[in-house]
Amino acid sequence: MKIERPRGTRDFLPEEMEKRRELEKIFREVVELFGYREVQTPTFEHLELFTIKSGEEIIKEIYAFKDKGGRDLALRPELTAPVMRMFVNECSHLPKPLRFYYFSNCFRYERPQKGRYREFWQFGAELIGSNSPEAEAEVILLSYRMLEKAGVSFELSIGDVNLLRYVLRDIPEKEAAMRLIDKEEFETLRNLLAKYDREEIYETILQLGEIESVEEAEEVVDYDFSHLKKLCEILDALELKYFVDFTVARGLDYYTGTVFEYYAEGLGAQKQICGGGSYRLAKLFGGEDVPGTGFAIGFDRVMELFTKSPKYEPPVVVVSLVESKDAFKIAERLRENGVKVVVDVMGRNLKKQMSFANDISAEYAVIIGKKELESGTFSIKDLVTGKQKSLSFEEAVELIKSKRRIDEE
Amino acid sequence: MKIERPRGTRDFLPEEMEKRRELEKIFREVVELFGYREVQTPTFEHLELFTIKSGEEIIKEIYAFKDKGGRDLALRPELTAPVMRMFVNECSHLPKPLRFYYFSNCFRYERPQKGRYREFWQFGAELIGSNSPEAEAEVILLSYRMLEKAGVSFELSIGDVNLLRYVLRDIPEKEAAMRLIDKEEFETLRNLLAKYDREEIYETILQLGEIESVEEAEEVVDYDFSHLKKLCEILDALELKYFVDFTVARGLDYYTGTVFEYYAEGLGAQKQICGGGSYRLAKLFGGEDVPGTGFAIGFDRVMELFTKSPKYEPPVVVVSLVESKDAFKIAERLRENGVKVVVDVMGRNLKKQMSFANDISAEYAVIIGKKELESGTFSIKDLVTGKQKSLSFEEAVELIKSKRRIDEE
Repeated sequence: MKIERPRGTRDFLPEEMEKRRELEKIFREVVELFGYREVQTPTFEHLELFTIKSGEEIIKEIYAFKDKGGRDLALRPELTAPVMRMFVNECSHLPKPLRFYYFSNCFRYERPQKGRYREFWQFGAELIGSNSPEAEAEVILLSYRMLEKAGVSFELSIGDVNLLRYVLRDIPEKEAAMRLIDKEEFETLRNLLAKYDREEIYETILQLGEIESVEEAEEVVDYDFSHLKKLCEILDALELKYFVDFTVARGLDYYTGTVFEYYAEGLGAQKQICGGGSYRLAKLFGGEDVPGTGFAIGFDRVMELFTKSPKYEPPVVVVSLVESKDAFKIAERLRENGVKVVVDVMGRNLKKQMSFANDISAEYAVIIGKKELESGTFSIKDLVTGKQKSLSFEEAVELIKSKRRIDEE
Repeated sequence: MKIERPRGTRDFLPEEMEKRRELEKIFREVVELFGYREVQTPTFEHLELFTIKSGEEIIKEIYAFKDKGGRDLALRPELTAPVMRMFVNECSHLPKPLRFYYFSNCFRYERPQKGRYREFWQFGAELIGSNSPEAEAEVILLSYRMLEKAGVSFELSIGDVNLLRYVLRDIPEKEAAMRLIDKEEFETLRNLLAKYDREEIYETILQLGEIESVEEAEEVVDYDFSHLKKLCEILDALELKYFVDFTVARGLDYYTGTVFEYYAEGLGAQKQICGGGSYRLAKLFGGEDVPGTGFAIGFDRVMELFTKSPKYEPPVVVVSLVESKDAFKIAERLRENGVKVVVDVMGRNLKKQMSFANDISAEYAVIIGKKELESGTFSIKDLVTGKQKSLSFEEAVELIKSKRRIDEE
């Protein structure tokens, strides 16, 4: 009986893994240019870290379990809460703002489907110490540049949950209403507002949903838009393309101001590839009331659109007709000179060793027989052209490293 | 009330994280020179993957839990079983040998102490398709080179669990006896063997414990040492330093032949930094009977000995006396030229922006006032020498990238 991997999880074989590392490298380069530094938190946290703001509701969607000491733990469903918990515990004394980034796996117990996995990766950043328009502009610019560098086509929507909370200020079930807006369940929202005899709010929200600029919004709601205007001014100066969309409410209810989401074409229903915004979590976790702003990119979703496969460089195969110890010594000498090398460990004959070299798409075979061992020369076979040449060790290394082809015998 | 991180886990702040990435990079470089390619498996597996060979006993030591569908899952305590499960499920058709490596976190529920964490990292490699002396020599050589490159002083011990099983062949509680040897609980071992009236086996094991070469062992036990001799011959030709130690039995009972362990000085009780050997797990997981050999390096323990801190390059600070949008545009221009830059997002005045630049050990500040904006020049302050200069954009980029100091005004 075969043991399968758990539902909703994946194995990454080398080719996929190398492509993932390539995207990771691109993201790292951008985020480090912005002065962000990497942090890492534990894979599991005390459950209350996630329920304290989102409520017990969230337990349904996460991997929660008791450890042997009876503690309630949970595999992290996202990274903002853990990073802010770390900030409160260990870095609140550092000069602000702090610029942290992470590339970590998260876990959600939900029905697996295309683009939704139970273990998934997020590449995110948090700017801790400010949620000024400048701070928000910075994290929006950063996420924008990261997605650009990944070669992904996207749309960016920017909203303001404060505006929604302001419009809903008289409604006791404000947070429930926010969630309905986020999920675009407008019929249910209408019924909820009708309950409080405030159907005109429903009209306002519908109007806000149609609006694409701050100026238009000012005519609909009597609200202080100066923060958002300042943010848009910076984004406009940087020539970023975005939509103002006041129905962006974000699923996680810890956001306190500006929120934003990126959508990509070609992903079907799961087209959101990044989400972020401003929040105040530090105080909730027992620290001072320090604001933050940040985002998380859905790494796996961007991977589905990422087309840049790194060129894999196959190893040189040392084909040995001599004793293993001699083949190993030659392989080591090549490695010391920076050449990627494999040697036979299967006790294979010449033909089978050559055939393995072909199987792994090797471009060069270094054939070591008794003659080569005695003379100190190396027979290099170019597996692309099929031609072979006898070379000194230095010549062999030079040929391999320069990736020159052997064209004549 | 502060929410703490779970017991036995750690947060990694940027400095520590960057040092970890440095060690990871060194390991990757070596393992890739040997033709190994990275794979990744899920963080949790079906519990039976780990109990099938090690028995229900292991549940005490791991994070096992039920998911919402009632499935028994476990956070992986090690990576060999997951990689072999992946091999059986997804790569058994690929040309052998397969050379895989991984750098992943593992979880064990044990009392936290110095060098033992509940979440810890392993950097390991598996050679799948052979457990010939050549295959074993390759993984021993590879682990040896990795630890050398990490700059760690170590001792390598090589044993053979087959020899121990041979010596214990008449004892029904063979596996229990092996575990006692592994834990060096010799009094209990003596009692166990006395139960079967085979105290002479105890004497043999004690003798084997004293022996440091295969030749000596041949005089004590009538066993076929040709495999081990061949392995030692290759290691000797490569001038690796090692001890033959027949009491190395490895805690995990899936090993089937050669086993090896590395110990480092300066780590107290938790001095084992790497362990490995040959195994036959594929069949057990529902595949063909394909042998494998590999090892895992205890990444966190090597980190305790790793002294090479990468030099952190602080960002250039754009100190802005102009509108945010103009400061952002200049910062972007610098980033486009590969310069790591931060801009103020706290609405700070000149003095406080300069003070932040000092706090983060920045080496250059680019001061942008109205004058600079109008003239298109840049005032660069060298925060190391304290000197300032007015430069064109290109000159500024050149100065910063070459890390030249400004010595005169």
